Formats: sequence, structure tokens, C-alpha cells
Amino acid sequence: MFFASDNSGPVHPQIMKRVMDANTGYAMPYGNDAIMDEVRDAIRTTFEAPEAAVYLVATGTAANSLALACYTQPFQTIFCAQHSHIEEDECNAPEFYTGGAKLTLIPTDDKMHPDDLAAAIARRPANSNVHMAQAGPVSITQVTEFGAVHTLEELRALTAVAKAANLPVHLDGARFANALVALGCSAAEMTWKSGVDVVSFGGTKNGCMGVEAVIFFDPKKAWEFELRRKRGAHLASKHRYLSAQMAGYLQDDLWKDMARSANAACARLAKGLIAARAEMKTTPEANMIFARFPRSVHQKLHADGAKYYVLDGDVANGPADENLGARLVCDWSMTDVLVDQFLSHF
Amino acid sequence: MFFASDNSGPVHPQIMKRVMDANTGYAMPYGNDAIMDEVRDAIRTTFEAPEAAVYLVATGTAANSLALACYTQPFQTIFCAQHSHIEEDECNAPEFYTGGAKLTLIPTDDKMHPDDLAAAIARRPANSNVHMAQAGPVSITQVTEFGAVHTLEELRALTAVAKAANLPVHLDGARFANALVALGCSAAEMTWKSGVDVVSFGGTKNGCMGVEAVIFFDPKKAWEFELRRKRGAHLASKHRYLSAQMAGYLQDDLWKDMARSANAACARLAKGLIAARAEMKTTPEANMIFARFPRSVHQKLHADGAKYYVLDGDVANGPADENLGARLVCDWSMTDVLVDQFLSHF
Amino acid sequence: MFFASDNSGPVHPQIMKRVMDANTGYAMPYGNDAIMDEVRDAIRTTFEAPEAAVYLVATGTAANSLALACYTQPFQTIFCAQHSHIEEDECNAPEFYTGGAKLTLIPTDDKMHPDDLAAAIARRPANSNVHMAQAGPVSITQVTEFGAVHTLEELRALTAVAKAANLPVHLDGARFANALVALGCSAAEMTWKSGVDVVSFGGTKNGCMGVEAVIFFDPKKAWEFELRRKRGAHLASKHRYLSAQMAGYLQDDLWKDMARSANAACARLAKGLIAARAEMKTTPEANMIFARFPRSVHQKLHADGAKYYVLDGDVANGPADENLGARLVCDWSMTDVLVDQFLSHF
Amino acid sequence: MFFASDNSGPVHPQIMKRVMDANTGYAMPYGNDAIMDEVRDAIRTTFEAPEAAVYLVATGTAANSLALACYTQPFQTIFCAQHSHIEEDECNAPEFYTGGAKLTLIPTDDKMHPDDLAAAIARRPANSNVHMAQAGPVSITQVTEFGAVHTLEELRALTAVAKAANLPVHLDGARFANALVALGCSAAEMTWKSGVDVVSFGGTKNGCMGVEAVIFFDPKKAWEFELRRKRGAHLASKHRYLSAQMAGYLQDDLWKDMARSANAACARLAKGLIAARAEMKTTPEANMIFARFPRSVHQKLHADGAKYYVLDGDVANGPADENLGARLVCDWSMTDVLVDQFLSHF
Repeated sequence: MFFASDNSGPVHPQIMKRVMDANTGYAMPYGNDAIMDEVRDAIRTTFEAPEAAVYLVATGTAANSLALACYTQPFQTIFCAQHSHIEEDECNAPEFYTGGAKLTLIPTDDKMHPDDLAAAIARRPANSNVHMAQAGPVSITQVTEFGAVHTLEELRALTAVAKAANLPVHLDGARFANALVALGCSAAEMTWKSGVDVVSFGGTKNGCMGVEAVIFFDPKKAWEFELRRKRGAHLASKHRYLSAQMAGYLQDDLWKDMARSANAACARLAKGLIAARAEMKTTPEANMIFARFPRSVHQKLHADGAKYYVLDGDVANGPADENLGARLVCDWSMTDVLVDQFLSHF
Repeated sequence: MFFASDNSGPVHPQIMKRVMDANTGYAMPYGNDAIMDEVRDAIRTTFEAPEAAVYLVATGTAANSLALACYTQPFQTIFCAQHSHIEEDECNAPEFYTGGAKLTLIPTDDKMHPDDLAAAIARRPANSNVHMAQAGPVSITQVTEFGAVHTLEELRALTAVAKAANLPVHLDGARFANALVALGCSAAEMTWKSGVDVVSFGGTKNGCMGVEAVIFFDPKKAWEFELRRKRGAHLASKHRYLSAQMAGYLQDDLWKDMARSANAACARLAKGLIAARAEMKTTPEANMIFARFPRSVHQKLHADGAKYYVLDGDVANGPADENLGARLVCDWSMTDVLVDQFLSHF
Repeated sequence: MFFASDNSGPVHPQIMKRVMDANTGYAMPYGNDAIMDEVRDAIRTTFEAPEAAVYLVATGTAANSLALACYTQPFQTIFCAQHSHIEEDECNAPEFYTGGAKLTLIPTDDKMHPDDLAAAIARRPANSNVHMAQAGPVSITQVTEFGAVHTLEELRALTAVAKAANLPVHLDGARFANALVALGCSAAEMTWKSGVDVVSFGGTKNGCMGVEAVIFFDPKKAWEFELRRKRGAHLASKHRYLSAQMAGYLQDDLWKDMARSANAACARLAKGLIAARAEMKTTPEANMIFARFPRSVHQKLHADGAKYYVLDGDVANGPADENLGARLVCDWSMTDVLVDQFLSHF
Repeated sequence: MFFASDNSGPVHPQIMKRVMDANTGYAMPYGNDAIMDEVRDAIRTTFEAPEAAVYLVATGTAANSLALACYTQPFQTIFCAQHSHIEEDECNAPEFYTGGAKLTLIPTDDKMHPDDLAAAIARRPANSNVHMAQAGPVSITQVTEFGAVHTLEELRALTAVAKAANLPVHLDGARFANALVALGCSAAEMTWKSGVDVVSFGGTKNGCMGVEAVIFFDPKKAWEFELRRKRGAHLASKHRYLSAQMAGYLQDDLWKDMARSANAACARLAKGLIAARAEMKTTPEANMIFARFPRSVHQKLHADGAKYYVLDGDVANGPADENLGARLVCDWSMTDVLVDQFLSHF
């Protein structure tokens, strides 16, 4: 019963097979392998973006930080939700890669509200005040850190605010696939057609070994990205093994199938939790649930070896009926059996 | 006939098998997987260093830059050979990770001479001149960029100079295994017993997919390294796949076997080149040769699809008997048949 | 009627005289001038800190950023009030000088509350979570950006929180003198006796030309500061002219006299504003007032050439009786006549 | 007898008078003072550059580092002479301000030779090799660190190499005035008419208190420079005192008169040294001499309180007739009497 994170599950066999298949003889290093050509084509097709610049790195933090670094001057600030991954879980990597830019946190429980974003940007008008950090890119997380999915309308409302101020937009898509299948839209619709300039297209959390694509819809950033990637020590010499993962991920829409599977498991879990009268922080839309339920249930789950993050409180000590928060994440390999086993403790 | 680089060859089956075997169910992320425990133990045993702090990253540039960053203040300079990887092939990654430190290049054809190193350090006496970059760590490359191997005596002469000035020593061991089997010494002898404080222990060029260990013999640096690794976006979430590679690499001394194989192929190639009267830049000691031979031979090799770096001149145009330089690298999978095929063009 | 800022007033004649007097023949550069010896002694005496390391720089932002850089690792975060100078008015200088550290903003209207500081620190426990920016120094502004003065009790409550978490404390004392005379305490009481480790001791806003002292109560930071100052390009070659300013500032307690004069003018202004029923944001305690009064008054003041920042709204257009916010600052040279002239518009 | 440095002499009375005169009432801060308008106009006229962006900072290192930062990406390298100030005397400030760029040192005794510069640039062709630091700006020092002056032909030969590779050119003009009067050319001829894009126009070493102008002939860099200056903590609030220095410096060509005076003193000293058979490293062209003469003379000079840098050897101990190197610098205030007094020791 492993609900701790989608970064801890196994790699899908189809992806592993591609990695194996790539292991024949010599291949050109540093992204010049033939499989990368296949990946580039597949991503351009998937995103309906024939000119896009496409790169692979091994971690989500690298994807985010390098993408942002190409759009942020060191005297600027990045606008993001208060509880975004780039703020809370990257140990100053965005600050590092941008050469010391700031992150301006938009107060929110989860999604940014366009008005709040607009107000934050309005406090930093262009070319007017040399004393303050200047307005830089807007970074949106899709799926959010609390498991919500921006609708296309919501995305467009946010990017419209950025565009009105002439600011670029980054999409942190560590769980891109989970959001996409939840919305039932196209990759183009969820990105450049909605005003996104650069996207971190996650693979690691959704069944890969460790690979993320960075996709620039404006290819002018290509060479700068390549240099920043190398300088950041994120250019893999035996790049074919990154390419192979991404190729397997995209092949026959595996990425969507895995995301659907994860979302379905999560929905089953959510349904059970609601039936058991757990407090739900949000309506789960993708593969992540934030819920509160009694200590006694936590204790039983722990006793049976369930793994997940308890967000507050002490499972061992306290009133049996006190609710404690939990983060529960389903990955592509989660089964109905395990979900039901988990739910059987309520 | 692929002699271009040891970063382009296949992964050894034993390593690939470990990666496959690791792909079962869930595993704790971020280096907390059980295989990492095995790796840590194996490396501590191999290096006779029971207290060593051991970490994995996916690229050699990350290993070097992060290791150096833990020993370099931004107002210092790193001493290294003029033609070292950290100077020539890392696109300012050491400068980036150290927050803007300098590299002071010791003039040399290949290996640093201890007197030259001492002279460079002497120009930057401690605590005396606020205007100049202060003396920082010494970084030694083993195998050198031109394929030479420092003897233990040579290593110790260099580290003695560093120690006399109270400076830490980093060993860039991208080809650590090739040097070790060439010297026939122990890992401890080639590192901490010879005055090395931190080593980049390479796996990628010697049959892994993409993994390098950073080994601190002083465990006090451990937490700082962990934070710098995360901030550099080099902490893998699905870390078990890095661990599995390194576990397979170390198992039954595979790493030494592969290095011996690469070195033997290289020796066979060198012997043939010498017999063919190629000009050898240095006596090849590990798995890399720098040699000069006639354009006409290059042309024949190119026509037959041989891959390697031509270092100067134009293969297509010029006198047939003019010598052009070549870099020839053998990896673990190089065969006698291919070497002989290459040599048959002379 | 110049109430815009204390960074725009004239230099006190006693200070200017010292600058003139320093202009005789040659003097050792880079802080080795004899006047600096006088300054160091005077500051050590004033702060009852015979071991303190004392340095001069030309701007307040340099003092703050360099002081913080000596106590902040790039993977850490500095805790400060939401509306602090280092966050709002230094264009990412703290991020720059720390190599990309973060600023964590404690929500507040003005002063930090110790409980809020404690809560923010508690979210970043030491040595526990590699994913988040680690807890770094606490920076307190005295006088605050809105003109309030922390009492010694308030200062100590904040530093106690920092000390409990083993964090160093920086005091941004751009208006140190104004706070000190308001409290009637000693320089030692307002700094190291209250738990401050390093202070930016401002001169520029209080009658100097451009000089701030950075005072480390722990002299171990001395050499690192010197190197960081030089690397930041803040080591003045003709340093005697910085020394002379600070010497004149300290001589015969001129710095306190000027601060008293500024505070008295501000108190007179505040009294008049209150009598005129202006809305006061806070009770003015030093030399700065945030007040709201009718547009019609703003219009008359503007027509007569009064200079000050209007914080919101459009002076030219809108209802005559609508209140608009103003920041009013008095420097040492402000006269009763000018204050009364300003008040006569109400 | 102070020949140690031109950064240690007094401020010219005309400049001091302007500083005094500026000290009346309030003035707009941060470069918005009226005197800055005068300075901007004067510099644009002097440099025949009506569109130039003109800024003031307090140190030469700030001028160089900020100017270079506007033209250097962190993955690039700056080309400069082996013994340039930015390499040897700025404690990694250029690396800091550029976010970690490299300095590539052109081997030379003093001036760069255009062929050596061209060779260094040729090793870094544009857009071709992601592994190496990319070619960035060329920085030329005029007067060189050893007291030589580039002729206009020499300058143009160097800038032509840069322009052929599409690289910008920075001129470190800490001793701009001394070079200009030595050449007898115009400021425009020594800068933009010779291919210079940005110049650090020194004041400090030539009779100011602490002020340098940074002049961009391409005004597109203006806003970026302003932000970088603020972020570097080099934007003076009471800027009028910087402006006043520069205004006094430019007024009635004082800057040229002072430089002529310094150069003349130096020429007198050089003539005497040559007559006394000192070994001259170079023919002194501006205000700096590198010469070698017997220990016995050094001892007499030291006994009489002469101040200058001895470059090698121990003045106190050794053969009386052994030659030791000295750096001798004359500033604007050097007198014939002092020069002759110095020479009387030979």
C-alpha cells in the first residue's frame, strides 16, 4: 500500500524495454542519438508545434530551473503560487539557475487567482523603479501541488494576465499527463494554445526512470538552453538512455494510458474516502488526494504497512477520533486491490 | 570501428540486469533506497574508508562541480592543469557551482608538474592580499585528458604541494578505473592514502548508463553536499536506478574487469600504431591514444566508417602523407577484431 | 519643504570639514588610512565591543548584502519582515551577494511578531529536509520601513527566537541613530546585548555623504568580509574619505545630535498632523511618518513645491476630501520653520 | 616621496570645491540630481557621443565588472591580457558580476598581441561546441598594468579582431586620461571611433575622491546597467557627491591637465632613472614605471621614507648591488622637487 509519491513507483515495462533495446553498440552522445530524433518528432507532433525546441533532462527540478533561467534575468522575480514546487521543494534551485532572481509568492490555498497575480504584477510596472526586483516570468503548476487541475479557462485567465504585462509563461508539468487526461484536451491546448511559452513535460512521476522534456515553443531559446543545460551539468553523455525512456513513454500514447490509470485509482480511492466521511481538502481531479481522517484509522494503516505522508499531528499519540491530514498519491501501477485494501481500514 | 569516446559505448549486461532487477514495486526515493545502502557499503569497503560520505549523480560534470563547490569559496581559485576537463569541457559549470570562483591554469602539456603547481600557489599566499582570488582546492585528473596516468609518486608529489599550503585536493576520476588497473594499486592508495580529499569516481565512461559517485573521505561535508546536489537539481527521485547501476558496476569487480578490457584494447591499438610508425603524443597508459598519422590513412578509415576525433587539419584536402592528429578511445566493449580492422588501414 | 527622504538632505558641516581635512597629501589606500584606525576605535568604544571587526562601505544596500552574505549559505533563506528594505528596495542584492539564497517574508504590517517568526523558522527544522531552503539568518530593521522603533524587549524577543534555532541575527540599521535616541539606550544594548551578531550602522541617511559601517561582534568573520567586500567592488581605494565621514559623524556624538534633531522635527510634524486630524498609520517614533490626508491638502502642498512620496491615488484628480497616503521623512537639517510651513497647508 | 599608487594621492581642490558647492539643501537622489545632467552632457560632448548612456559608480572594479556584466552571459568567457586588473586585482569581481563567466588570459608580457587574441577567439567558434565556455567580450586596459599605452593603431587592431568575431569590446580606462594625453588624441578616437563599445572612464586615480564613469556608446544597455548597478549595491543615494566630483573633473579639462602633470612627473623620473642606469621594463609612456635598481638604493630610499612597491626580493638582506624591481607611480600632485629628491638617492 504505497501512496507516498508517484516518484517511487516502478518503471513501465514498455519504457524499460526501450531502454534495453537502446543498448546495442555505440551511439552518438550528448543528444545526437537517433532516438532523440524520434523523440523530437513525436513531441512536435503531440504538441502540434513543428518548430518547437525539445530537450531532455533527468530531473523535474532541472527542467523547471533551466526553463525558467532562459526567461529570467537575475534582477527579476518569478511569479508563482505560494505553495509551488519551485518555491517549496527545490532548495533554491530556481534562484541558483537564474543567478539570484527572486520568487514572488501569490497568496493562495492552491491555484493562483488571476486577480491576485495581476495585483502582484501591477506592483512591479515595467521600466519604472530601479530599486525593486523587476517583473519576470509567471510559473503555473499543472497539476497543482494539492492535486487540482487548472481548466483551460483558468489557465488562459492566468496567461492573459502575464501577456498583458508582456511576461513569459512557464508551465511546471511534472504531472502534465495526469492533468491532460483529466481535462480531456490536447497537449497544444494545454500549452501554447493557452499562452504557455515553455513547459516542463514530466515523465519521471508517470512511469519513467528519470526523464523530463523541456519544450520551448519559441525555438530562439534553443542554443541558450543547450549552454545552460551543459553548464548546469545536465547534459547526459549517454543521452540515448534518456531518449529511449521518453520514446517509450510517448509510444502508442502510453503516457496517457498510465495517467488515466493513476487518475482512476485515485478516483476510486477518493470515492471510498468520501463514503467513509474523510474531510477532503479539494475534489481530487488527478492522482493526488489531500484528506483528513481519524488517528485510529492512521494507526491501523500504519500497522499494516501503508506508506503515505501524514501532514500534521502525531499518529501514535492523541485522541483516536482526531482527524489528521494525509497526502495520498497514486501512480500508474496502483491497483484496485491495493486501493480497496487501503479503504478497508476505515 | 567506434573510437570516438568511451561515453558512447553500450552498458554492460551485468549493470543493465541490476537496473532491470531494481524495477520491482515501490522504493524509497531520493537516495533512501536499499540498493544505495549496498552501494555505500561496497564503496566504503573498496576504498577502505568506513566513514566516507558517498553520493551518486548522473554526470561527471555534476560530480566534479558539486565536489569542488563543497571546498571552494566564491572568492577563491581552483588550481588545475591547463587542459583539464573542468576548464575545457564543462562550459563554466565549476564557476557556476562555486558561485563564481576562478580556475587557475597550471601551464603544462598534460600532467601538472609539482613545481609549477607550487609556484602558482605561492603567488597567492594565505590571508595576505585581499585584491586577488585566494588559493582554493587543487584538482587533479586521473587519467589525464591526454591519456596519461599519474603514478602514486606523482600524485603524492602534487598533493604534498597542496597540503603544504593547507589546500584540499579533488581527484577527477572520470576514468578512475582505467588508471587504477594501469597502476595495479588499491582505490585507497590512489585516493586518501595519497592525499586526496574528495574523488569523482566515474562509472559512465566505463560501462554504466549514467552514474558517478562522489566520495568524501571527510564526512563533515556530507550535509552540505546533499543540499548543493538538490539545489543543483541533481538529486534523482527514482534514485534506485542510479544505485542499481553502481551496484552492478562494483559487483564482482566488474568495474576493474571492464577497465582492463578497455586498456588492453588500447594497448593493442597502440602497439599496432607504433609498428605503423604513427607519432605518439604520449605512451598510452590507459584507454586513450593521441597519435598522428598520414592523411591518406585517415581517408581510408573515414571511408570505412571509422569514428574518432581528428584534432587538426582537414582530412579531405591536403597532401596524402601529411600527418594529422587523432584521439582514439577504447571502451570496455572494444574488441580485438575491431582494433585489428582499424589497424589494417595502415 | 523636502520631506521625501533622509537620503536627499545635505551633509553636516562637521562631516564635510573632516573630509576636507583628510585631503592632505598621501594616505594609505584600501582602509589602511590612519583615520580608519580612529573610526575603528570610536566604534568599538561606542558599542562597548573591543574585539569587533569594523568596516566601511558607501551604500546601505552594500552594508546589508555583504553582512548577510557572511552568514548565509546559498541553499538557505533569510527571514525578514514582509516590507523590509532588503526585500523591497534592493533589486535582489541580497540574493546576488548570497549566491542565490531566498528571502522568507514574515507576514506583518510592519514589525515582525516573534510568534510569526518562530512559526516560519519551525517550518524549516535544521538538518531534516534536503528539498527546502534551509533556515538562515534573521534580519531585523531598526527603524522599520514604516517608521516604528523596536523596543529592546521587542528586539530581544525576536533574537531569542533566532537564538533558539541557532540562527544568526542581522540588524539593518540604516536609521540606527534615530532608533537609538528614540529608545534612549546604548549602542551595545541595541545590538549585541540584545542578541545581534552583525549590524549595518547607517551614516548616509543621517547627515553623511555616503558611508555605512558594518560591525561584526564576532571578529572571526573579518577576513571573509574583506574578501567579499573586494569581490563586490566595495573596497574604496581612497578609503580615507569614507573614514573621514564616519569620524566626523561619531565625533562629539554628532550622530546622536542629528538623529535627535530629525526625530524632533518629525514629532513636531506628527503633532500638527494629528491636530489636523490626519490618519496616522502608526505613532511616529523616529523620523518617518505615514499619514493620510485630503487630496485638497496634497494639491496645495504640491502647488507650493512640497516634495514627498504620495503612496496611493492621484493627487490631481478625484474628490477634494478623499484621503491619500503620504510618506514624510525628516532629516537632521529639517527646521521648525519648514515643518510649520508644511502644516500651514492643512 | 609617495610613489606607491595614484590611488593614494589627494583630491584636486577644484573637485573638492564642487563637492562643497553641491552641499546645499536637498537634491534628488539616485542619479536624478541636476549635477548629473551637467555630467552627462559634458561626457557626451567630450566623447562626441550624443546618445551615450552615462553612469557613475564609486570604484574602478565596479565600473569594470558592471560594464562587462552587461555584455557577458554566464556561459561565456572574457578575453583579456594575462596581467590585467580584472584578472589579478579584483578578487573574482568579474566572475561575480557576470554570474560565473570565465576569463581567458591572452599570454603576454603586457599588451595583448592581436594574433594571440585572434587565436584564442578562434578556439571558441560561435554556436559550435556546447561543452566549452563561449566567446564573450574582449577587455583592453588602457594604460596597461605595466604603464604602456596602446596606440590607436594597436587599439584598432585588437578591436578589429573582436569585431570580426562579432564580440563586444570593453576598455578598462582606470588611467584613461593618462593614456589620452600621452597619445594626444580625442576621447572619441580612443573609444568608439576605435571600436570600443563600453568604457570605464576613471576618475579616482586621477585626482578624484572616488568616482568612475561607465559610458555605453549603445544606449540600449542603459536600463540593464541601471538594474545591475542597483543590484550590485552601487547606486548611491546621495549621488550628487559623485556627480560633483565628475563635474569638477571635467570642468575646463582639469582631467587632462592633471594627467599631463602626472605624466610629466613620470617622464622626469624615468629620465633620471635611465641616466642612473636603472633597468627599465618598458619605456614609460604615461604615469607608471617598472624599473630595477640596486638594493643599496632601495635601502637609502626606504630609510628616507620613500613609499613604493618592491616587486621582488628582500630590500633588507642581500648583495648591495643586486637589482630589485620597483613599481613607481606618479599622480597629478607629484612635484619636481619630490621626483628630484627620489632621484638624489641614486
